[in-house]
Order: sequence, then C-alpha cells, then structure tokens
Amino acid sequence: MARTSAEDPFQEDSPRDFCGVVGIASDRPVSRELFYSLRIIQHRGQESAGIATFDGATHIYKGMGLVHEVFRKEELDDLKGSFGIGHVRYSTTGGCRVENAQPIIVSTNVGDIALAHNGDLVNAHTLMDEYQKKGWAFVTTTDSEIIIKLLAAELTQNPDVPKAAKALTSKLIGSYSLVFMVNGKVYAMRDPNAIRPLSVGKIPGGYAVASESVVFEALGGELIRDMEPGEIVEVTQTEIKSTKATAPKRHAHCMFEWVYFSRPDTMLEGKLVYEARFDIGAHLAREHPVEADLVVPVPDSGRAHALGFSSVSGIPYSEGLIKNRYIERTFIMPDQVDRETGVQLKLHPIRRVVAGKRVVLVDDSIVRGTTMRKIVQMLKKAGAAEVHVRIGCPPIVSPCYLGIDMKSRGQFVATGRSLEQIAEQITADSVGYLSMKGLITSLAHPAEDLCLGCLTGEYPVEIPGERLRFQRSLKSFS
Amino acid sequence: MARTSAEDPFQEDSPRDFCGVVGIASDRPVSRELFYSLRIIQHRGQESAGIATFDGATHIYKGMGLVHEVFRKEELDDLKGSFGIGHVRYSTTGGCRVENAQPIIVSTNVGDIALAHNGDLVNAHTLMDEYQKKGWAFVTTTDSEIIIKLLAAELTQNPDVPKAAKALTSKLIGSYSLVFMVNGKVYAMRDPNAIRPLSVGKIPGGYAVASESVVFEALGGELIRDMEPGEIVEVTQTEIKSTKATAPKRHAHCMFEWVYFSRPDTMLEGKLVYEARFDIGAHLAREHPVEADLVVPVPDSGRAHALGFSSVSGIPYSEGLIKNRYIERTFIMPDQVDRETGVQLKLHPIRRVVAGKRVVLVDDSIVRGTTMRKIVQMLKKAGAAEVHVRIGCPPIVSPCYLGIDMKSRGQFVATGRSLEQIAEQITADSVGYLSMKGLITSLAHPAEDLCLGCLTGEYPVEIPGERLRFQRSLKSFS
Amino acid sequence: MARTSAEDPFQEDSPRDFCGVVGIASDRPVSRELFYSLRIIQHRGQESAGIATFDGATHIYKGMGLVHEVFRKEELDDLKGSFGIGHVRYSTTGGCRVENAQPIIVSTNVGDIALAHNGDLVNAHTLMDEYQKKGWAFVTTTDSEIIIKLLAAELTQNPDVPKAAKALTSKLIGSYSLVFMVNGKVYAMRDPNAIRPLSVGKIPGGYAVASESVVFEALGGELIRDMEPGEIVEVTQTEIKSTKATAPKRHAHCMFEWVYFSRPDTMLEGKLVYEARFDIGAHLAREHPVEADLVVPVPDSGRAHALGFSSVSGIPYSEGLIKNRYIERTFIMPDQVDRETGVQLKLHPIRRVVAGKRVVLVDDSIVRGTTMRKIVQMLKKAGAAEVHVRIGCPPIVSPCYLGIDMKSRGQFVATGRSLEQIAEQITADSVGYLSMKGLITSLAHPAEDLCLGCLTGEYPVEIPGERLRFQRSLKSFS
Amino acid sequence: MARTSAEDPFQEDSPRDFCGVVGIASDRPVSRELFYSLRIIQHRGQESAGIATFDGATHIYKGMGLVHEVFRKEELDDLKGSFGIGHVRYSTTGGCRVENAQPIIVSTNVGDIALAHNGDLVNAHTLMDEYQKKGWAFVTTTDSEIIIKLLAAELTQNPDVPKAAKALTSKLIGSYSLVFMVNGKVYAMRDPNAIRPLSVGKIPGGYAVASESVVFEALGGELIRDMEPGEIVEVTQTEIKSTKATAPKRHAHCMFEWVYFSRPDTMLEGKLVYEARFDIGAHLAREHPVEADLVVPVPDSGRAHALGFSSVSGIPYSEGLIKNRYIERTFIMPDQVDRETGVQLKLHPIRRVVAGKRVVLVDDSIVRGTTMRKIVQMLKKAGAAEVHVRIGCPPIVSPCYLGIDMKSRGQFVATGRSLEQIAEQITADSVGYLSMKGLITSLAHPAEDLCLGCLTGEYPVEIPGERLRFQRSLKSFS
Repeated sequence: MARTSAEDPFQEDSPRDFCGVVGIASDRPVSRELFYSLRIIQHRGQESAGIATFDGATHIYKGMGLVHEVFRKEELDDLKGSFGIGHVRYSTTGGCRVENAQPIIVSTNVGDIALAHNGDLVNAHTLMDEYQKKGWAFVTTTDSEIIIKLLAAELTQNPDVPKAAKALTSKLIGSYSLVFMVNGKVYAMRDPNAIRPLSVGKIPGGYAVASESVVFEALGGELIRDMEPGEIVEVTQTEIKSTKATAPKRHAHCMFEWVYFSRPDTMLEGKLVYEARFDIGAHLAREHPVEADLVVPVPDSGRAHALGFSSVSGIPYSEGLIKNRYIERTFIMPDQVDRETGVQLKLHPIRRVVAGKRVVLVDDSIVRGTTMRKIVQMLKKAGAAEVHVRIGCPPIVSPCYLGIDMKSRGQFVATGRSLEQIAEQITADSVGYLSMKGLITSLAHPAEDLCLGCLTGEYPVEIPGERLRFQRSLKSFS
Repeated sequence: MARTSAEDPFQEDSPRDFCGVVGIASDRPVSRELFYSLRIIQHRGQESAGIATFDGATHIYKGMGLVHEVFRKEELDDLKGSFGIGHVRYSTTGGCRVENAQPIIVSTNVGDIALAHNGDLVNAHTLMDEYQKKGWAFVTTTDSEIIIKLLAAELTQNPDVPKAAKALTSKLIGSYSLVFMVNGKVYAMRDPNAIRPLSVGKIPGGYAVASESVVFEALGGELIRDMEPGEIVEVTQTEIKSTKATAPKRHAHCMFEWVYFSRPDTMLEGKLVYEARFDIGAHLAREHPVEADLVVPVPDSGRAHALGFSSVSGIPYSEGLIKNRYIERTFIMPDQVDRETGVQLKLHPIRRVVAGKRVVLVDDSIVRGTTMRKIVQMLKKAGAAEVHVRIGCPPIVSPCYLGIDMKSRGQFVATGRSLEQIAEQITADSVGYLSMKGLITSLAHPAEDLCLGCLTGEYPVEIPGERLRFQRSLKSFS
Repeated sequence: MARTSAEDPFQEDSPRDFCGVVGIASDRPVSRELFYSLRIIQHRGQESAGIATFDGATHIYKGMGLVHEVFRKEELDDLKGSFGIGHVRYSTTGGCRVENAQPIIVSTNVGDIALAHNGDLVNAHTLMDEYQKKGWAFVTTTDSEIIIKLLAAELTQNPDVPKAAKALTSKLIGSYSLVFMVNGKVYAMRDPNAIRPLSVGKIPGGYAVASESVVFEALGGELIRDMEPGEIVEVTQTEIKSTKATAPKRHAHCMFEWVYFSRPDTMLEGKLVYEARFDIGAHLAREHPVEADLVVPVPDSGRAHALGFSSVSGIPYSEGLIKNRYIERTFIMPDQVDRETGVQLKLHPIRRVVAGKRVVLVDDSIVRGTTMRKIVQMLKKAGAAEVHVRIGCPPIVSPCYLGIDMKSRGQFVATGRSLEQIAEQITADSVGYLSMKGLITSLAHPAEDLCLGCLTGEYPVEIPGERLRFQRSLKSFS
Repeated sequence: MARTSAEDPFQEDSPRDFCGVVGIASDRPVSRELFYSLRIIQHRGQESAGIATFDGATHIYKGMGLVHEVFRKEELDDLKGSFGIGHVRYSTTGGCRVENAQPIIVSTNVGDIALAHNGDLVNAHTLMDEYQKKGWAFVTTTDSEIIIKLLAAELTQNPDVPKAAKALTSKLIGSYSLVFMVNGKVYAMRDPNAIRPLSVGKIPGGYAVASESVVFEALGGELIRDMEPGEIVEVTQTEIKSTKATAPKRHAHCMFEWVYFSRPDTMLEGKLVYEARFDIGAHLAREHPVEADLVVPVPDSGRAHALGFSSVSGIPYSEGLIKNRYIERTFIMPDQVDRETGVQLKLHPIRRVVAGKRVVLVDDSIVRGTTMRKIVQMLKKAGAAEVHVRIGCPPIVSPCYLGIDMKSRGQFVATGRSLEQIAEQITADSVGYLSMKGLITSLAHPAEDLCLGCLTGEYPVEIPGERLRFQRSLKSFS
C-alpha cells in the first residue's frame, strides 16, 4: 500500500523502493542465513525486518528497525527450521506500525501461510471493497493482507499451491514479487509483468530466492537465473520446481532498479547494475558533452555513472563531495533546523578540490530537485566556477504506482519545465538528462521489456486515470 | 484463546482472570479517562494495554506492559475523540505477542470496528475451522479475531449493530463481555449467561461501561447497574440505549470474581466484593472453628476473608505475613533459584508475631497447593506452634473453560485427596474449605445464578467432554 | 546530599528515607544474594541500585530503576566473587543521575575502594569547600564522594582500615551507615549517634551486614545484633570482627524507622517494627479515645497502628480504603490532571463499608497534610458520617537534616496550628497525635537514645542555625 | 587510558583513533551547534557522546551510542547557554562504561570545570600512583580524570587559567588536545608536540575550536588556523585569545590523521586530507608500478589513494568492491560465524568487473593483515587474475602510545617479514608500501614535524622501553 514520505528533506531527489524479500530451503537451520541475506539487501528497506521459519511448526519474529537491531542471537535461535522466508521494509517517518511488518502470517484450513511481498497492488482498494462486501474484515493496512487472504481462499478451494497462486494472478493488478510458505514449503511468485526483481540461486545446502542476486554470492553460492514473468517456483533443498505461466506477458522490468535501487554488485536480467550505470554515464557523456575540469558524483549512488562519464569524456573523476558515513539511515534532526545546515551535515564539498573548477555533477535521477539545488549551491559556495548537472535517466514526469515512493505528479521538478528552466530552478549552469534511447541501450533491454511509466506516463498495467502502454508507443525510442 | 501459565511459581495457588474492558462516550476527549480506567482495573491484566478512540477517524495505540508503561502523554494526545474503548490483558510469561494485544481493529465495508474482549470462547477452534473452510484466514491467535470477523460479516448482511450483535450470540459458546466501537459508536454486550462481569455507569460528561464498577467511582461518577445476560447496549453521551435479549438464560456469574479477582471496592451483581469476602470468612469460622491465637491472612487477597473469620471467631487478626510491595507484577528471577528463597522474597513471616502461636491462615482459594505449602512451612520455621489453613471457597477440582487460567484437571491439590491428605500435602495441622452452601449464602445469589464449574464439574454452557449443568444438580446446595 | 522531592502529590504526607545498604562475605558467589537482599530492602530506595563484588578484581554494576530492572542474569554473572556490597537509592523526580548511583568506587594507592552510604552529612558543603581549597575536585554531587575520598586519604596515611575509618568520625557530622570494601575486604561503620539503622547477621556460608534485619532471615540466616554507635566491623566468611569506639555517644536512633520506614518484619534495636506500630496504635487509642464505628488504616503503612488502635478501643478494624497495587513505585501521570482523580486512582474508599459510619482514620504521620485532607474528603464523599484522624507520632514541626526528605520548615501542616486548626485544615472531625511519651514508651527506648529532631527541633548533632539537643531538654517527656 | 579492541574482525587492518572534541563561544544558544559539530566528527568516536554548556550554571548530558542516539530535542533544550564543549569517544567492545564518557565535570573551589580530551597520556599510571600516594582517589578509569584533577589543583594555587594550563604541560607526557570550560569560559590547549589535531575557526555568532576544520565549514564558518604546539587559547564570542608557549617544541603531527583518520574534507596543518591521500596514491604508483587492468580501492578510506594511483599509472579506476552501507558503525554478529561470511556481508566484489582482470588493490594501511588477506581471497574467488596490493604508508612495525589503538608489537603483519613474505601471508601477487620519503613529500611536512613512531619505533616523547626520537635519525628520509 502506497505511502508518501512526509519528511527526509535530504533524500527526496532519489526515489525509493519498498521492500526486499528472501526465501531459503536448506538441509541445515536457516535463520542465520536469512539474517545475513536481509542484511545484504538492507538498502531495500530500513523500517522493519522479519523472518518466518518452519520446523513442523511456524516460527515468526519481526520488529521495527534495521535487521541487526531487530534480531539478536536469542531470536535467531528461536527461529528453528531449515525452511524460511524474510523481509525488509522501507523506512518512512509516518505510519510505521509493527502490525504492518512482514512476513505476514495467517492460520487457514490448509495450515499456516507466511508471506513476504515486494511491490504495489494497483487494485488493492477495489479488492478490499469487494471482499469487505462479502463480509471480510481486514486487520492491517497493507495490501499484503489482501494477497494472503485471497491465497488462503484459493487454497481452500484447491490445495494445489501453484494452481492457487496462478489463480491469484487473475485478480491482482500491479507489481508483486512474492515469497511465501505454505505449511513449511517455500514458494516464490513473480507478477506477469516481472516488474520488481526476483531471482533464484543455489546456495550451500540448498536453494534460495531473493530480490537481488548478490544474496546468493554473499552466502557462498551463485545466481541461477531471474524468475520469469508470472512464474511460480517451489524452492526445495534439492531443486527449484518451476510452474511457468503458459502465456507470459512481455516483461516490464522497472528501469529504476538499475539506475538507483539495486546494489551495484547485483546482476539483474542479465545486466550487471554497476555496468548499467557505467554505461549510462558513458552515454551521458556522449549525449551531453561539456567543457569541464572535474567529474564529481553525488555519493553513493552516482559513483558508477560518474566513472562512466569520466571515462568517455576524459575529464578527471574526483570525490569532491564527502558523505557523512554515520547518517545513512535517516538523518534525524532533534528539531526544526535550517536546511542548509542539514544538507551540510550529510554532504560536504571539498573546497580546495572544487574551487575555481568547472564541475560536472553526476547523479542517477532528480525527483523534486530540492536536494540537487542545495548541492549545486554548496558547490558554488565552495568556489566551483561552473556546475553542470548530468542525470542518469530521462526526466521523471509521472507518478509510480508499482513500487516506488513517488506518487504525486505535482512534485516533479521536470514537469512542465524546459531544460533551461530546470537548470535555473536548481541553479546549475546546465542540465543534461540521459535520453530514452541512451537508457534503453545502457540497460540492454528493449523498451518493450521495461517499465518506463514514470518517464512516459504509459504503464504496463491498467491504472485508473492513466494510459496503458501500447507496444506502438514505445517503438519510437529504438 | 486459553493459555497456560508455564511459570510464576509464587502465584499458582491463586487462579487468574484474563482481561478487563472499558468503554466511554463523552462530551469531552476520553483518552485520559480511558487511561485512568485501565489503571483502576490493572489487576485484571498486566500483559498488555490498548486504547482505541474515534473522532471521525479511528485511532489506536497498544503495547506490552503495564498501562502507565504503554501510554505516555504523547500517545494519549494522539488518541483524539470523545468516544473510545480500552483493554488490559493478562500477563503470562509464554506467548506474549503484541499482535494479540487488544483492542483489535478491522476495516470493513461498514467502516472500522474496534473490539475489546474479556472471556473465553469454548468453540473458538470449531468456529475457526468452520470459517477457514470457507476460505477465511486468521492473523492473530486470539478468539477475539473470530468474534470481530463474525461481527463484521453479520454487519455486512445487516448494518443494524444490536441485531448483528444478537445474531452473534447464536454462534458463540462461552463467556464474553465485549466492548466495541462501530464507526465510532460505543457498544457493549454480555454473554447470555453473564459469566464475566460488565456494568454500566454514569460519569461526568457522559456514560461508560466497564468490567468493574469502581471505575465509575474513580472517574467521579457512579454505577447504574450490571448489564443483564445477553444484553446489548449502546453507550452515548446522553444515555445507555439497551436492547435486551428476549429470553435471557439464567445467570451464571463466575463465583471467583467475588472470591479473588475483582477489587474489594467493586460492587458485583448487588453484592460488594469486600462484604462477600468478609461474609465468607465469617461462614468459614462457623463451619471450621479452631482453637487458635491468631488469624493471619495471606496478603493481599486474603485480608477481608481473614477479618470475617476473626470477627466471628473472636481470635485476634494479625498481619503476620509481610508482602514485598515491589514484586507485585511478576516476580522476575534472573535465573533458576531455589524456590524457598523466591517465596521468602515475596512473603515473609514476622517471627516474633507468630512464634509459639497457633495460627489460622486464611486465603481465598487453593489451586496446586505448592505456594500454600511453602507459606505453611515458612510459618512453622518462624516458630508457629500450629497452622490451620482456612480457605474461602470449596475445593477446586475441575478446569475452567470460561475465563480463568486453570485448565488442567491434574494440577489441583484437592483432586482425589481427603481433607486430611490435603493438610498433609501442604504440611498444615488442619485444612477447612468453605462449604458450597456457605459460599452461596455469602455471595447472596442462588446456586442457579452462579458458575460453579470449577467446584462441581458442571458447566453453564456445553463443553465437549464435560457435564452440562442441570438445575437439579444444584438444588442440593441450598 | 539532600534533595527535595518536587512532585509526587500522593506521597507527601509520608516522609522519605534515602537509601538501603548491604554487605556480604561468603564462601560462595554473592551476586545473587546481594540481589535478593536489595529486593528485600527495595522500599528504602527506588531510584537506582548497584552492586560491587570482589574476586581479586573489583566488579561493579549499577543503574537507574528498581533492582530487578537494573540487574539481569548477565549482569549478576559478571559480578564475580564471594565478597560484595550493594545499595538502593531513593527515587525522586528531579536530579536523578546515574553518576550519583552507588556503590561509588575509586582507585587509590591502597587499592580499589567501593562504598555504599545511607544517611546525610550535615557538613558536606563545609568539607567540600575545605578540600577544594586544597585542590581537590569532585566528580559527583553526592556526599558519598566526600566520604570515600576522605577515607582514601586516611588510608594513604595509615593502611589500617578500622583506624582510618575511625579517623573519619572526627570529620563527618551527620548520619552515616556505611558499608564499604577495601581491596575486597568488607567493612561496615555506623555513625557515633547510630542514627540510621545497620545490623549484622549470620547467613548460610558467611556473614552479612544490612540496613534491616529481615535481609538475614530472607537469606535463610538470622540477625546477630544491631551495630553499636561508632562501631566499625569487618565482615568475613567466618566472623564479624568488631572495633568498638572507646567512648560511644548516646544513641540517637531515628524514630521514623519504626513509625514508617522500615519493614514491619524488621527487628530494630530490640524492638520489632510491627509491634512498635501496634503499641503506638494502642497508646493512641488510650490517649485519644473517640466514639466511632470503624477503625480504617491508610494502607499500607497505617495497618499495624490501626490494628493496635482497634484492639484497645474495641472498635472494629476494617479495610475501608483500597490501595491500587500497581502504582506503588511512582504514580506517573502522563500530564497535569486534577488531583482528586489522582488520589482516587491510588486510594479508593469502599462506599458501602464507610457510608453512615463514624470512622477512625489511622496513619503513621502527617507532613504537609494535603494527601490526608484528600483522603478525609474522599471518605466523606463516600458517606462517612464522621472522620477522626489519629496519627502514630507527635506533630512534625522541624526539618530533618539526617536522612529524611523533609527539609523545609514551611511545609508542615502542624507548624503554628492548634489541633483544631489542623483538623479544620484537613477537614476532619477531630485529630489526635500520639504524645511524645506515648511514642517513647512504644519504641521501648529512652528519649535520650532517639533522634526526635523533627518533633522537637533539637538535634543530636550540631547543625548550623538549629539547637543542639541537651539531655535536660528531653527529660520532660519521661 | 589505552584500550585494546578485542573484537571487530573486519576493521583490524585500519588503526583507530580515540576521540573528537569541539568547543564554542557564541552570542546564541550553542547546544544544537555542538550537536551538529559532533555529528560531523562522529567518525572520530562512536562509543559515547557528551555535551556540557554554561549559562551561569553548568549543564551536562552524555550517554553511550552515536550522537543522534544520545541526544534528542529534550536533552538539547536542557543544555542551555551560549558557551559549551562536546566530545565523541571511540567505540570498542570491551570496557564501555558511561562513567568514562566525556566531558568529565568536577566541582572545585574555583567553580565547575568541564573537560574533553583527545589523546593518550604516556605517564597516566605514574601520575595516578604519585597522586594516590598523596591521598587522591580516582573515580573513573580515564586519564582525563587525572588531567582535570591536576588542572583543578593548579587553579586552586593560581586562578589564572592559561597559567594553570601551562603548568600542566610540565606534568603531562603524551598527546592531548584539550577543550575545557572553567566557570563557563571556553579554553583549548594542545600538547607541546601538537600530536593530535586541534584548530580554531570563526562561526556565525562566535568562535569555535574543533578536532577537524570541516566542523567550521559545516556550521557556515571557516577555519582560521591550526593551534600551535603548547598553545592555550580562550575562545570567546568575539575573539580567540592566545597564550603561546614561549619555546614550542618541534611539531610531531600524527601522520595517520592524513592517511586514515580525518575526513577527506578536513584541512590539516595546511594540507588537505583528500589531496594528501591523492598525492600518496600518485607516489605509490611511481614507487611501485605494476602492469594491471584495474585500480580498485578498499572503500571508503582507500578511494582517494586509489584515484591518485590511477591518475599517475593510467590504469582505470573502478569501484570493484561494494561496501554495505548499513554496517558502518559496528558489524554486530548475533553469534560466532565463519569469518568469510562476515567479510562478505561488509564488502563484496563485483565478479563481472574483476573477473579475469589484473587488479591493483589500494588501501591506506595494514595492521594485522587478516582483513586484507580476506579481501584478496575474495577478489581471487571472484575471478581476479592477479591482485597487487598497494598501501598508502610505510609498514607499521611499532605500537602507538599517543592516541591510536594499536598497542601490541606482536600484532603487525609487517613485523619481521619481507615484502615477499607479507605478500604470501595476505595471498597477494605483490605488495608495495609507500616509502617514508614518499609519505613525507605527500604530507608536505618535514619528517621532524611528524610523529612517525609506529613506522620507525622512535617517538616524540619519552616512553619507557622505547627510543626517543632524535633529529638525526629522521634525516635519512629526506
């Protein structure tokens, strides 16, 4: 269920993902491997963390905070069993409730079901209304409760899990990478558009499914492959049993996973995130060349893009902005302070490095433009002669309904502004956005296989009041 | 849903209740009055506390711990509105989960429903099975979720709340004193046997419903009356609107509310708890007289009984056992210690008072007998010449399925033992239990209007494997 | 160092003590026995708790809160050694700092010293000034730091501990019951007036010293004797080695320890606290007889006095005021509320018991009179026909400088008021205070051996601006 | 007082600093500016944080944890006044005690003194022994208590603060950058060798002193200058009043502040840390060239060194190791796990980037070599053809006694090993350390003005059992 981040003035130029999921079936206890996995994908959600395991009975523990804050030795010891799933959830300042933490778990007539969900249902309210009319009552405010209850209802009709899961896809509209356990069996399912990532891998002692492939490597294993659109798998100790949907729709991978969300060391649909970003930077340098002395990234996410830009442009790369290592999670201010001070606590320019220099400032994306404006001003105050902003994706002009926290059309700096006006707004000497074609080429996927909704206003699923994507409309980019 | 207390070696001689509830409709904000009310009935549950209020939207806050630990100024300020309900829940060491805290709240097609429940459903599992077969999935492990979901389903059929609530009574078997809000309107309902207490009162600014009448007085108001069996009321700012069930069953008030659970200053079905206990003690002195020097209560619950015993027997009352004021809630031991030390930390005899004396030791009830045995030994070690145990109710020999935490037949010291054998078991010189007739006379209610299941093995509702109470079987006591 | 309690509107009629101390030398690990001991004397201080032990090295742990909140298994396991001391500190809302928690521990050239202190130095500021002029700097705001630093300085001159401790007595003016460890040896010392209690006992495995004798019994041992004025003892595994001061002053035992502070089951200077209170009540009944229907105590501290009153007067004793068991420690209000509500949450009259009755209300003492006034009004509102207040000690009219939290002359209701005016002030039908002679007889100690400063304005030690007690001035009471 | 870090297997290749200090005198309240300052220098200490302010009275608050965990709005509001000092302390797993947190505050006959200290006294134990013999007792286990007590004693003799502070320098041996308040006046003092950093700056509304110059910029002000050896300043709202020591010794700036500790955006003794590291990398490329495909830094501290290496060698720079952003502070493992997993959670190689490549791996320093060995193995496992390690300073072979947490000679991988043996030990294809001459040139200070004790075994102050540095012995490097 969508949330709007009311605060965090220092992050708003970067959109946000919602969750990360993991599931493991092993020949050994899995609570620690689930714990490590969640730490590896901690960047996908810092609000809450949870783990459910099965050893004949279902065990669950979840709480608010970072993974290592929620789980101590005691809790991991209590999470017995060699089957389990885990979840990290996005941190927002408003509306955090431990009731909304995942995995969500229910008891049904086919046994306990535990479910972890990454994505966003477009028709959550419609479904809720429909089933409330049938007398259902909902305990949480998450769309995950709808999914798990529909799944339970399907399983009551037909205890075959892949079939029940498949039946779900006719009801759910939106993005959903699901990992779930039914009576201790671990399953995963990806929506028919494959919008949010989900991949399967081999790990020592068994098999796993996770939002990002780096999990398998960190556990000493390796990626097998990304899950296919609409695919349902059972993860066992000895294999990945797949039930493939007969007629998968085209892919619609979220382009933001490469541009910003996923870890650089994750392999996504065959394209390494680090390389995608480096290639983006390289394209950007070709598309928007500029005479300058330095290429400076906005750390941490702009580094690979900036290295690509530097490599093609020949302009030296420099770490001219220093990021405070200790304000990663949230920049909690004790009270209202002037924002300039705030940003300077998080990011600080090196005066001697940028003074008198023409700086190419590289970042992955711009949403509202307010942070970017502050960074540009910081650099100028530190003596930069010129600041040329280069952005690793086309202008964001439409909301995301499929898992990213940018919901309101009015918030985008690019909406209704020319490049010159955007530059003026963020006080930069110039602004250059990567072209749609440059993006597509860098990601090595045809436009038809990407979700570009926030860039085009055309979405891979039907959304009330928005345009549905037609194949035709995308052709023009290639 | 029933729980068994796995620990707490120092309390097991006294059975335990599960919850306390309160509801208020007022012309002023109610969060603080709900907070005070819950503090007043804190003895009914120390595991968790929760409050839900309504001011157009439903607000809820709940947490683990004592009422004043859960709520601070901030939370009470956020609980806006002049309608609300509250709940305290029983403390047990195993299985405490914040998910199980109440009020439970759900969103339905008739709006938000919040519910607080005191009691125990006998057919919780049967109902759960039945509805799981229809595809329902249950998020918590409490029978309150069943009740609220059935209520939501009824309301979907028929939005008239009293009718929907009445329909519920044909499905629920067991004890249930309910307080609930539907779209901000406050309702209360008592099961057709009126097993657990629930009364309505006038308070400054409006009306209220609560588990114990002392709540109304503490808020500056007064008791109006106890709710009737099967009665449903709406509590408004200006009145109590009652919908009486047409054919109420006989009452089956839990005798333990007078004997042990309720506060001495609560008026229950027309009989003050303090007076009931004093009268019990008086009867006990007549039924089981003994030559002795001192009457000593087991504090705190045995005091009124002991005063009644002293008053009739003429044997002086003395506070020969001192209770540590700071280990009320739970006696948390840092690790396994010998139990003698444990009991001595909680209760301690005054040597000079009891040495060489013949002591009548008065308590409300005996469950397992292990604590009573320790207390008797403590007194003897302190020099008591004789210890004669007098108990304020007949021997407990059957489980309770209707709201008291004593579930296993095997645990009772009185099962299969003669009075002499019980005395031997607890190392007392003699043991006297109040007769059934003495109890009934003291409570000023006919046996037919009391639940005496734990004493007789005959229950006011049908319980699989147990005998249903017939009027005949009770006659013999009067 | 004295503190004034700024808040706690519901306790102010009862004065407060500051601390409790305990020390053990044993042939087994002592951390758990120290923990139990501190729980036993928890009533002497709820602000902080601390334990220091020795097993070759000194271990210490202390924290804010109740004993069982500060110490868990882990901390007790880390407190290794079979020698140790412990401390509980009084809870006040202002100025709580963990730095002020005890035991205080310092490293010196004769090794580590740990010290726990109950009492109040009159010349703390004078000593601090004197030694600051010599260049000393003080880290805490407690007078315990002065004591430990002076002790360390003495030991540097002369490593003989009893001699060094004795030398201290020529510098310290005030009350001090000290327990301390020097290089793991456990010592105790009582000020030359023996104002605050301190006694030695035998326990299984060794010997102990504690503020109250009930500690020894709870540990399975027994009281040996109270320490003498100015006495210094070393507590070892096999004996109590005493160094008696050659010319002890007269005793000046604080009368309040019997009247209010100590546990009823503690034996103090040969007089059981429970018996002292009962005798006080008996004297009170003789000195201030009244026609009445009921004797009602203010729980918990007024019970024994009330039983004594009832026994002599023949008026029945009744528990007409019910105390909420869950607001013992502090009655934390989430914000400013009207006080009537506050008091009703803590104490509540049983209407049916007191209605229409002439009530004798018995309490140990009155300080400001505000709580007593509220209780009287509560009883009248509940229908009491008359309320006659009877108080277990003479009027408090002077501050205490020796360990009790009542420092300001202006706060006492009895100051400058006749009995009639006091009765009017607290809205009672009559007020009767125990006479000085009645008190002295009840405590079974001559006036010359008691500290009666708060009643007479004459103190056993020199206090600037106050009168020193002369033997003569006390004669008149006997 | 020195501590040894017993744990943290993933950080041990980088030595550690102890503390950071800041002081401000302003025309406005300073608690928030102190808070921001401490967040800026949070990297200098994560164990505890503290702030003391003065507004006529001295206020203090300190606690365990990160700056934003210790202070909330409430605490900052209570820290009233426009003069104040702050401190962050190094995080170590053993021996953390809130008593050791700073600022330390004492009351003396010249008023309150508060002190914050960065550095390490060599003669702490000697001084402690000396003063304990005079009867002094020490409450904490920090050498800061010795300093503040000596300062208090000096001030008692002579209330002139700069003179008293100067007198201190004849007693203290070691490194000490001090910030202290005497009766609300803010002072700073640097040891005669100027070992640890300390600089003064102008900020809006007043003046400040801080461990790192980036503090002034983040507050909207600027660096004035580094403090001189032995200099004492008073910081006022309108000026910096300096008392310069007449005969300053030579500087002995810790080389590690540039190489590893300080933030890249800090200017230290005229040399920007970022530039120093870049120049080091450049020298390293010239001194230890190698045929390779990629330059990969160990993030975060190796980045600038690696960029310098890349710039001179022409070998492309790549972020081939990804650091988990959420395990900055401490990598808390719930229990004992195999270390490979541990390191992989913190650092993870990008397989596709390094596979088949000859990698130059650049880091600032090596202490034990265990983490470096794991990183090399990780890269090889990810397919790197060759791994050539290049280190930004000469081999560490001697302990540090002056503020860095590497105390034991036996722990260094370079001790008694040839370069080949070190390479073998860490499983690298080659190892190259920066030469002493390269280091000195990069730092732009003559060897005589640096402390190189850990590299040479010759120290700028007398240390029992170690060689004192002679000017002669350093000549050879230039």
